Amino acid sequence: MKNIPYKIYLDEAEMPKAWYNLRADMKNKPAPLLHPATLQPLTAEELSTVFCKELAAQELDDTTAYIAIPQEIHDYYKTFRPSPLVRAYNLEKHLQTPAKIYYKFEGNNTSGSHKLNSAIAQAYYAKKQGLKGVTTETGAGQWGTALSMACAYFGLDCKVFMVKVSYEQKPFRREVMRTYGAEVTPSPSMQTAVGRKILQEHPGTTGSLGCAISEAVEVAALDPSYRYVLGSVLNQVLLHQSVIGLETKAALDKYGVKADIVIGCAGGGSNLGGLIAPFMGEKLRGEADYRIIAVEPASCPSFTRGKYAYDFCDTGMICPLAKMYTLGSGFIPSPNHAGGLRFHGMSTTLSQLYHDGLMEAVAVDQLSVFQAAEEFARVEGILPAPESSHAIRAAMDEAIRCKETGEEKTIVFGLTGTGYFDMYAYEAFHDGKMTDSIPTDQELAQGLSGLPKVD
Amino acid sequence: MKNIPYKIYLDEAEMPKAWYNLRADMKNKPAPLLHPATLQPLTAEELSTVFCKELAAQELDDTTAYIAIPQEIHDYYKTFRPSPLVRAYNLEKHLQTPAKIYYKFEGNNTSGSHKLNSAIAQAYYAKKQGLKGVTTETGAGQWGTALSMACAYFGLDCKVFMVKVSYEQKPFRREVMRTYGAEVTPSPSMQTAVGRKILQEHPGTTGSLGCAISEAVEVAALDPSYRYVLGSVLNQVLLHQSVIGLETKAALDKYGVKADIVIGCAGGGSNLGGLIAPFMGEKLRGEADYRIIAVEPASCPSFTRGKYAYDFCDTGMICPLAKMYTLGSGFIPSPNHAGGLRFHGMSTTLSQLYHDGLMEAVAVDQLSVFQAAEEFARVEGILPAPESSHAIRAAMDEAIRCKETGEEKTIVFGLTGTGYFDMYAYEAFHDGKMTDSIPTDQELAQGLSGLPKVD
Repeated sequence: MKNIPYKIYLDEAEMPKAWYNLRADMKNKPAPLLHPATLQPLTAEELSTVFCKELAAQELDDTTAYIAIPQEIHDYYKTFRPSPLVRAYNLEKHLQTPAKIYYKFEGNNTSGSHKLNSAIAQAYYAKKQGLKGVTTETGAGQWGTALSMACAYFGLDCKVFMVKVSYEQKPFRREVMRTYGAEVTPSPSMQTAVGRKILQEHPGTTGSLGCAISEAVEVAALDPSYRYVLGSVLNQVLLHQSVIGLETKAALDKYGVKADIVIGCAGGGSNLGGLIAPFMGEKLRGEADYRIIAVEPASCPSFTRGKYAYDFCDTGMICPLAKMYTLGSGFIPSPNHAGGLRFHGMSTTLSQLYHDGLMEAVAVDQLSVFQAAEEFARVEGILPAPESSHAIRAAMDEAIRCKETGEEKTIVFGLTGTGYFDMYAYEAFHDGKMTDSIPTDQELAQGLSGLPKVD
Repeated sequence: MKNIPYKIYLDEAEMPKAWYNLRADMKNKPAPLLHPATLQPLTAEELSTVFCKELAAQELDDTTAYIAIPQEIHDYYKTFRPSPLVRAYNLEKHLQTPAKIYYKFEGNNTSGSHKLNSAIAQAYYAKKQGLKGVTTETGAGQWGTALSMACAYFGLDCKVFMVKVSYEQKPFRREVMRTYGAEVTPSPSMQTAVGRKILQEHPGTTGSLGCAISEAVEVAALDPSYRYVLGSVLNQVLLHQSVIGLETKAALDKYGVKADIVIGCAGGGSNLGGLIAPFMGEKLRGEADYRIIAVEPASCPSFTRGKYAYDFCDTGMICPLAKMYTLGSGFIPSPNHAGGLRFHGMSTTLSQLYHDGLMEAVAVDQLSVFQAAEEFARVEGILPAPESSHAIRAAMDEAIRCKETGEEKTIVFGLTGTGYFDMYAYEAFHDGKMTDSIPTDQELAQGLSGLPKVD
């Protein structure tokens, strides 16, 4: 076996030329999205009123295995990709484990996360369709930042509705978006009917993701030169994010390394679905076997304690219904610093795979996640995002198990981003003020009691 | 010529094995540091009471051209180096210039800047000498962060005195340091005699870099198991930073590219001295010619409007005297968002080279710097630090000149870091609240009137 460097960078020529559409290899396809009024599967035409035409097609396409990456997107990918696949020599040494640990680091771009992989694709299709701009919502701010960057590159207007509490608590995130020319509005706002209604009913509200989604959708719906875009959950997003897994696999193959375990954090599923895509593909085609592990916060355990059922994707219940592992669209997770993992449901593709026993899931508590994050930062240098640190926790746990059993397993995990804009969370951790709140069975039952009735 | 990718990454095996000591090739050596009491050149023994022994030796060595990088440091370099040399295709297109623009990006590590190159070296020598820890001061926080990371890696205590106003305004920087286990104290503090004295005299003071230096030096001086370390100005720092220039040169050579102009921002000189080292070396040996340009803020113009003379390195006048371009140790630059460029003096090595006409210098005003920063961010993706943006401004100006003359010059500049922790400055820029204040001739004369009398 070749000598493995600390960081494996593919050459530009080795970068993937096509996205891999995992659904094409699934025997049991993910269940279709349903129209919230008719409860009938959404058609391409219906989807095209909300999403760009080509994105709507990608959303529904579950047969084409490889979809070419347009040259313009590939060119932009070259400005921040390939991302490094890092051999965690220092972490291995620190844990005294015989396991070999690798992580794919997606944080080396200004958005600080993997979100840019899909943002640039969605902006490209919007531009190609001749649109003037796009609207979206953002909570933690990673998606909003990524979309702002993508829109600046293609000269599109970008309207971001940022949950008011984040807008006020994270002024730096807001300023990064403004640097890229985005219009950032604290939500709820007076700009939309839904915003005005909420402000009238709850004058002091600090907003919610559900409300911000509704505002972004309303603005896009009222202007035919705009479309709404979303950074996770959707099939199209998982498709674009497959570039993470494809690069990871190519880098491992280049050095003759076979993964045993692939681990990713899971909120809506954008990172996990992208990272595992080619590995799961081999598994589905019977070419190789892998343990694939989704890691979620114990405070928002959709896989490990949720129900596989049709549910609304938003709290306002205006968006389509998806069949997914869900805690109920009315479930409010306890305050948790991993904002990107607080979604009540999960990608339909990942939900189907989990339901079919093709992947595992673990839930980890917040304190142990930050302990792992700090240990990782000190030995590997990189300061991880709270979301990414869920995967670190699970990878470290597997590596520690290898130490106990003496197994030399190869563990690959996704390090989705950096924590530079999450230092208030680290501060709470350092000051001993961090808590975690695991929902009771009763709280979960209450969240699930509101599931819509769909046959 | 080979097809040049967006990002040139050297292989791990191509990384420099030795630092390049520019002074060895200088006919006119930089003037020695003088003892503040005796005004005699400092000996290695005297320096060793403040600095680690090997670092004191490096400080004085102006004859050894190459100094091997110890294996432990090289191993750590591999975790965040080689850094990419980026071909700025998008910026070239945006400016419609025939110039070829390259930048060496040092921001892809948690400290967010090039400071880690020297921090890890200084921590290594402290560990090797059997010390318990090191002390330092930090203003903007990049150096303090880098040193915290390096100390965590080698298991050293790290005591950082952070200027109180920064400590309060930049709690995130402080938290990053705490994540790496550093003890961060707002300065002035009650921990030191000098701190107590200042607090008694000026109860409401928000501190200054000069005061923080004094506190850090005092703590190290009183405990023989500690030494004081510094992130810029010194010869040893420029030596370690030569890794930037060596990688840059190796990457250009690999693709058969010859630079015409090399540009770097200059505060104390750590980045500029490192970036230009091998280019200046060729120039000194008569092997090649380059235009080498230092860029400084118009609000703190030590090269362009300062005097070449012996001066104190700190406002407290307790540190050694250095012969350098200076505005006077009592000069207080107007508030400027590029904290790393607000030093009143300049590295002795760079000062000598400038004095000998081997390099040029330009001063740029803050508003034009942020205009360049935002343009750069939008087309190249990376959000630059205010300091780095001075180099961007000058590089863009040169590229625009090439457009006017039709010359296809190759411009290389140093992009020292990211601006994630400087968003308050971008906010001021976006809100139209940014100003710049260029000192009057009278103000400069006043600063220079306090220069010490040294023959």
